[in-house]
Amino acid sequence: MTMQEKSFESQEQQELYELTVRAKQAAQMLGNLTSSQKNDVLAAMAKRLKANQDQILDANKKDIEYAKENDLSDAMVDRLLLDEARVDGMVDALHNVMSLADPVGEMGPSTLRPNGIRVAKMRIPLGVVLMIYEARPNVAVEAAALTLKSGNVVILRGGKEAWHSNQALIQCWHDALSDCGLSKEMVCMVPSQSHEAVNHLLQFRDTIDLVIPRGGERLIRAVTDNSKIPVIQHFKGVCHLYVDKFADLDKAEKLLKDGKVSRPGVCNALESLVIHKDIANKFLKRVNKLGNEFGIQFKADKDSAAQLDNATEASEEDYHNEYLSLAMSVKQVDSYDDAVAHILEHSSSHTEVIVTENIDRGNEFIRRINSSVVMVNASSRFSDGGELGLGAEIGISTSKLHAYGPMGLVQLTTEKYVVTGQGQAKHY
Amino acid sequence: MTMQEKSFESQEQQELYELTVRAKQAAQMLGNLTSSQKNDVLAAMAKRLKANQDQILDANKKDIEYAKENDLSDAMVDRLLLDEARVDGMVDALHNVMSLADPVGEMGPSTLRPNGIRVAKMRIPLGVVLMIYEARPNVAVEAAALTLKSGNVVILRGGKEAWHSNQALIQCWHDALSDCGLSKEMVCMVPSQSHEAVNHLLQFRDTIDLVIPRGGERLIRAVTDNSKIPVIQHFKGVCHLYVDKFADLDKAEKLLKDGKVSRPGVCNALESLVIHKDIANKFLKRVNKLGNEFGIQFKADKDSAAQLDNATEASEEDYHNEYLSLAMSVKQVDSYDDAVAHILEHSSSHTEVIVTENIDRGNEFIRRINSSVVMVNASSRFSDGGELGLGAEIGISTSKLHAYGPMGLVQLTTEKYVVTGQGQAKHY
Repeated sequence: MTMQEKSFESQEQQELYELTVRAKQAAQMLGNLTSSQKNDVLAAMAKRLKANQDQILDANKKDIEYAKENDLSDAMVDRLLLDEARVDGMVDALHNVMSLADPVGEMGPSTLRPNGIRVAKMRIPLGVVLMIYEARPNVAVEAAALTLKSGNVVILRGGKEAWHSNQALIQCWHDALSDCGLSKEMVCMVPSQSHEAVNHLLQFRDTIDLVIPRGGERLIRAVTDNSKIPVIQHFKGVCHLYVDKFADLDKAEKLLKDGKVSRPGVCNALESLVIHKDIANKFLKRVNKLGNEFGIQFKADKDSAAQLDNATEASEEDYHNEYLSLAMSVKQVDSYDDAVAHILEHSSSHTEVIVTENIDRGNEFIRRINSSVVMVNASSRFSDGGELGLGAEIGISTSKLHAYGPMGLVQLTTEKYVVTGQGQAKHY
Repeated sequence: MTMQEKSFESQEQQELYELTVRAKQAAQMLGNLTSSQKNDVLAAMAKRLKANQDQILDANKKDIEYAKENDLSDAMVDRLLLDEARVDGMVDALHNVMSLADPVGEMGPSTLRPNGIRVAKMRIPLGVVLMIYEARPNVAVEAAALTLKSGNVVILRGGKEAWHSNQALIQCWHDALSDCGLSKEMVCMVPSQSHEAVNHLLQFRDTIDLVIPRGGERLIRAVTDNSKIPVIQHFKGVCHLYVDKFADLDKAEKLLKDGKVSRPGVCNALESLVIHKDIANKFLKRVNKLGNEFGIQFKADKDSAAQLDNATEASEEDYHNEYLSLAMSVKQVDSYDDAVAHILEHSSSHTEVIVTENIDRGNEFIRRINSSVVMVNASSRFSDGGELGLGAEIGISTSKLHAYGPMGLVQLTTEKYVVTGQGQAKHY
């Protein structure tokens, strides 16, 4: 549909649509840049961040003042805050993305069909990505670096708490693009803080290819409910550690400690411990000691709760909960099959781990558990793009369409078919 | 959300939801079957089709009678009609799917991370696929064979014109599954012909993973507009043939004839001819001859129209049109860049072809045109799953998310990460 044919409810809606049309046009140019040209933009951006550091930190001060005036939580203020070290962190992130292989233009193996035509696939950008995020201003640099490197135009929509910081950062992008003689539409920002703006954008199926919301479950659900555009969904991470009867209990204890204690507030932290009954008595002693040492609150089945100092009996709801704190559910099971069934029922499709020395049970776990990351004898905390070797991560998908699990540059692209012949026809 | 927590508007809605819950449970079992077990079901289905052929043809007669009573078009009646040869065609399709490699469980190369964990990806089924289609009853066999082989449960929703035929065919599936000792929920059929049934199903995001509509643009748009579940979109195929100034005109003529004349009613037929001005006079003579021989109606720019006996001047709208008949648009361009720009503006993202002997122009076309299939010196009619080597096709996606272009068994799966370690933790 051309713009003339569209009818708009409001001037804001029309202006937003026109923004996405320009983004789509810029995406055609960006998709044709070489890796060197894209790396030049990232390098220019790194320079601009340091050159404009004072303006960025001044803008950030306004956001911090707003946050304090409005009694936002300390955690929120910490997420918002920029200082010299954090600007350096963004510069490092840009250099990291520069070092990553560019997937655009990659071709896999080709086949020669019986009629002599050659069929291959080539990676191409998705086009235009709408990124909806909350307080962290670094997303405006790090996510945009990934979309740009993968040939996609990003439309950034940050939280209103970070409005001034985001404006200062987007100015750096526009300066960097201009330094390289490129259109500033290659990195766009929504020029409005209104809720309606997002809802309008989520209807523009013909100009936006993908929506990536980053933030709490409420944000992701609201975006998914309202969007006519495909959305990368990452609702929550209810990660399970299953300690099998053939587990090495030293490994199990280490993985439990790493998964629950090292950083409880992240999505790849453990939320549920499943224990085979044959080793339950023995392992729960260790669990209890760990719980007492770190102050872990357990929600456990009756038998397990009886062996833990700091436990209450778990409700069914507790097994679905993402605690994001020093709390977790515990479930004793009678058999390997019961463990698998329990995990399948309560999984959030993020990450599940088995601890076992039995090769068949390890392989069967891999086969039967269809979470986005399935692990044998390794910590759930490795479930992120950096640790899995993607270089950097734009998000984690817990829905199976398009991408599943941590998403890097490759997952911001798709493949087209490329056919070369010498004049072959089907019927003549 | 559990079923108890859901509130339903109607009994129909609740029954449909329960159907999808059973489908999801069956998908867990189906996902774990071996290729041999799945091939056994396909073989049993092939036998059942022949054993129940009389019942199938009797049921089909009722649909044909209904169609004739309701004055459905001859084309519709032809699509509906089953006879012994068409049943044999379905049997052949089943044997073809049996012969295809099963993507489920496939693992690509793995990497060993610096800490010693091994990271790989494994193909897994999507889960539950809702297939919404129009009159052709063979979809109930052929699409279901592909979903089953790729480990997915299908929920079939055929057009009401084919109601009796579909019921007879689904009975064969249930008998075949029962012959193999498997749950009949592995191939489901929507037990209602109501429109509301479809709209209810399109809301069940937690139990259905993918929707594939097969039919006209109106059906696909209605499904896309109402669905909360990802939809494979294939709106139309406005395929272009660009005859470059460096084209071999014999090849160009052959590809034009194959693309426009061999079967004009299909989506990979040509709808638009783009000609470089330097060879326009010469090539339009051949186009005119071909047009007169086969009765092609041209919608052409003024200069080209003047050289064609059977042409009217094209409006902008004519260049967006999918004719699906012996008609096509013609556009003369001043340069290679103008050809690319014209195609980018009018492409439906299906298939575009360049005819050129110049290697740079061929490669640049491949790089700059991001339709799902891009071809050099080959007929657009090769743009289907069978010709491209996928074995069989469940649909063609013209949107870039998840799959782009013809979709075979692999595109009915996704990949999970598989991590194996020896007790590695991130912090301890």
